[in-house]
Amino acid sequence: MTTSPLTFEITAEDGEARAGIITTRRGAIETPVFMPVGTAGTVKGVRFEQLESPDLDAQIILGNTYHLWLRPGIDVIKACGGLHKFIGWKRALLTDSGGFQVWSLGELRKISEEGTEFRSHVDGALCFLSPEISMEIQAALGAEIVMAFDECAPGEASYEEARRSMELTLRWAKRSKEAFCNLQAGRPRMPDETSALPARQALFGIIQGASHLDLRRESLERTVEVGFEGYALGGLSVGEEKPVMFDVIGAMAPRMPVERPRYLMGVGTPEDLIDAVARGMDMFDCVLPTRNGRNGQAFTSRGKVNIKNARYAQDQQPLDESCRCSVCRRHSRAFLRHLFLSGEMLASILLTHHNLAFFLDTMRSVRQAIRSRQFTKFRRDHTERLGSGRE
Amino acid sequence: MTTSPLTFEITAEDGEARAGIITTRRGAIETPVFMPVGTAGTVKGVRFEQLESPDLDAQIILGNTYHLWLRPGIDVIKACGGLHKFIGWKRALLTDSGGFQVWSLGELRKISEEGTEFRSHVDGALCFLSPEISMEIQAALGAEIVMAFDECAPGEASYEEARRSMELTLRWAKRSKEAFCNLQAGRPRMPDETSALPARQALFGIIQGASHLDLRRESLERTVEVGFEGYALGGLSVGEEKPVMFDVIGAMAPRMPVERPRYLMGVGTPEDLIDAVARGMDMFDCVLPTRNGRNGQAFTSRGKVNIKNARYAQDQQPLDESCRCSVCRRHSRAFLRHLFLSGEMLASILLTHHNLAFFLDTMRSVRQAIRSRQFTKFRRDHTERLGSGRE
Repeated sequence: MTTSPLTFEITAEDGEARAGIITTRRGAIETPVFMPVGTAGTVKGVRFEQLESPDLDAQIILGNTYHLWLRPGIDVIKACGGLHKFIGWKRALLTDSGGFQVWSLGELRKISEEGTEFRSHVDGALCFLSPEISMEIQAALGAEIVMAFDECAPGEASYEEARRSMELTLRWAKRSKEAFCNLQAGRPRMPDETSALPARQALFGIIQGASHLDLRRESLERTVEVGFEGYALGGLSVGEEKPVMFDVIGAMAPRMPVERPRYLMGVGTPEDLIDAVARGMDMFDCVLPTRNGRNGQAFTSRGKVNIKNARYAQDQQPLDESCRCSVCRRHSRAFLRHLFLSGEMLASILLTHHNLAFFLDTMRSVRQAIRSRQFTKFRRDHTERLGSGRE
Repeated sequence: MTTSPLTFEITAEDGEARAGIITTRRGAIETPVFMPVGTAGTVKGVRFEQLESPDLDAQIILGNTYHLWLRPGIDVIKACGGLHKFIGWKRALLTDSGGFQVWSLGELRKISEEGTEFRSHVDGALCFLSPEISMEIQAALGAEIVMAFDECAPGEASYEEARRSMELTLRWAKRSKEAFCNLQAGRPRMPDETSALPARQALFGIIQGASHLDLRRESLERTVEVGFEGYALGGLSVGEEKPVMFDVIGAMAPRMPVERPRYLMGVGTPEDLIDAVARGMDMFDCVLPTRNGRNGQAFTSRGKVNIKNARYAQDQQPLDESCRCSVCRRHSRAFLRHLFLSGEMLASILLTHHNLAFFLDTMRSVRQAIRSRQFTKFRRDHTERLGSGRE
C-alpha cells in the first residue's frame, strides 16, 4: 500500500474517538471530517469561494455518480478534463457509486445480478448501472476517493432480505475492485501533466447488512478480505430507529480496520456525528445542513431554529450567538425570516452557509477535543447546550 | 442647499456626458452609476459581501417601498432600526416610492386624486398608497435618497392620458415634498447615535409625460419649480420603442438642472446606459442583470450569451474572456450551462454575479473614459465589440 494515492495516519485518540489525517494528491484532510454534499457538481447555493473560505474551509466535497452520469453526462465531463476541472474545484472529491441513489428510486428500478436497471429522473430514459459501469464513470470523474457499487437494504429489512442484499453487495464489491484495478493500471500516482491518464484514485468498500449485527459482521469481514483503502458503513439512516443505527455503529466501528478511514455514509445531525465519532468513525456526509437550510431550518449550538417561526419576526439576534460565520456576524433572524417568507434565494444561500459553517466548525471542535483528550467533556457540554435552546 | 445631506459635484465632462461624485452620509458615489435593484431588501441571489467586493463594489443599491411595506412591513423594519440595519448594509440606499410598482399591477389598482388603492400581491389585502404614506414609509426605511410618489403613464399613452397623468404626478410631487419636509424636520444632518431621529434624507422628483416631448418639458419645468435634490426621468422603458425613449432622453437630459443628479429610472442594457450617459444622464437602475441572470442570459463584451444554448455544452471558455470577475476566472460556460439545465440555484447566483460585474465594470470604464475625454471613442469601440459576438 506504499504506492497508494491515499494515506491515513491517526494522530490522537481519546477513548474510541480518533483524530487523524487523510493525505490525498489534493492535500490533507483532517479527520473526523464532514463532507458537504455536492450532488450535481455544486453544493446547492454555495459558491466554491465560500467552501474554501475560513468560515467553511471544506477540505473535501462529494459528487454523485448517478446524477452526473445522467446530466451533464460523462462525455461532457471528460471533454472538460474531469470533475475537478469541470466544476472548478481544486481540493479533494469523493464520488458516491450511484448504488444508493438508484436504490432510492424505489419502484423505478429493477435489481439483477448484473446490475440495476432504472428510469432516469431527468428524461425517463431506461438506464443500466453495474459495478463495472459505475467504476468506469467514477474513473472518468477522477475523484480522489471512489466508492464500490453496492445495494442498500432498507433499515427494517428482514434477515433474509438483508442477507440476499449483503451477498449481492459483496459480489459487486469484488467486481468493483477488479474493474477499478483495471481502470487504474498505468495511471500516475500524482497528477502529471505529461501523462495522458489522470492520477490514481482510492477505492472504498461498503459494509451492508441492515440492522442485523451478525450480517454486518460477516459483511465487514468479507469486505475486508476483498481489500479496500477505506471502509464505509452503508444502509444506515434509511428508516431504522436511531438507537438501532447506533447499535450497528457501536458494534461495527471497533471491528473496522484501525489503519483505514471509517466512513459513515449519509448521517446525520451534529449530535449524530459526535456520537459516531465517540464510537470510532472518521468520515461523514449528509444533506441535512444544505437541505434543511433550504427549508428554513438552522442548526445552532442551542438546537434547531425554524426561521419561519413568528417569534423571530423582530428578532435582531443572529441565528447563533456563539457562531462566528459571516451570516451570524451580519444578519439577524428577523432579516433571514423575511427573506425566507419572501421566497428569496438569499434565504437558502445564507441558511445553508450558516449550517455548513456550524457542521464544519463542530468537527473542528471535535478534532481539537480529541487532540487535547477532552472529547468526553466536549460531548457532554455540547449536549447540555443543545438542550438549552428555546424551540 | 448647504445643509443638504446630499451633494453633487461634476468632476469631468466630455460632450454631454459627465462624470461626478454624489456625496451622501454613507460615502461617495461616483457617477455615472449603475444601482443594482434590491427589491425586497436583497439583490436576488447576491450576498452583501459580494456587492462590497472589488468585483462589484456597488456604492448604492435600491430598495422598493411597495415590496418592503407589504412584507415584512414597516413595523418590523422600524423595530430593527431602519432598512440599513435590517438588511445589514452600511452603504447608500435609494428607495423607489412605490408609484411604479403599484402602477404595474394593472387591473389590480384604482388611481384617485388621493392616491392608489390596490390589492397586495402577497395576501390579496386591500391597500392604499398616497404621497404622504409613501413618504412616511420611506422616512422609516431611512434610505439616503427617496423618490417622490408618482403615476406612470404607459409608453404609448395618448396625449390626453399622458397630460392627465403628468398633472396628477405634479400635484403628488408637491404633496410628496411637503410630507417629506415635515418628516425630515429635526433630523440630524449626519447619523447621530444621540438623536432619537434618523439622519436626513434627500428627495428626488420624477418627470413624466410619456412620449410627448412638450408634456415632458412642462413636467420638467414644473417639477423643478417644486424643487428637489435630484431629478429622475420616469415612465421610460414601459412599452415605447427604443428610438422614442432616446428621443425623450435626448430632449430632456440637457434641460435638466446641471447641478443636480439626473436619474434614468428602470433602464436598461449596458448599451442603453452608455447611450443615455452620452445624452447627459448620471444614475441608472435596472433589473436586467439580475432577472436575465436568473433566466440564463449573460451580458458580455461580445453580446448576450444564452447559456441554455447547446453550443456551450462542452465550451470550456468563461462567459466573457475579457471579464475578470470571480465567475469568469473560475467557471466555464459548460459548467454554467449544466447548472442552469439542472435547475441549480448556483446558476442564478453565478450568472447574476457576472452580469452585475459586467454592468458595474462598464460604468467604471464609462467614468474613466469621460475623465480622459475618450468617451466617444470608448462608445464606438464598445458598440463594435458587441457586434462581434457569435450569437
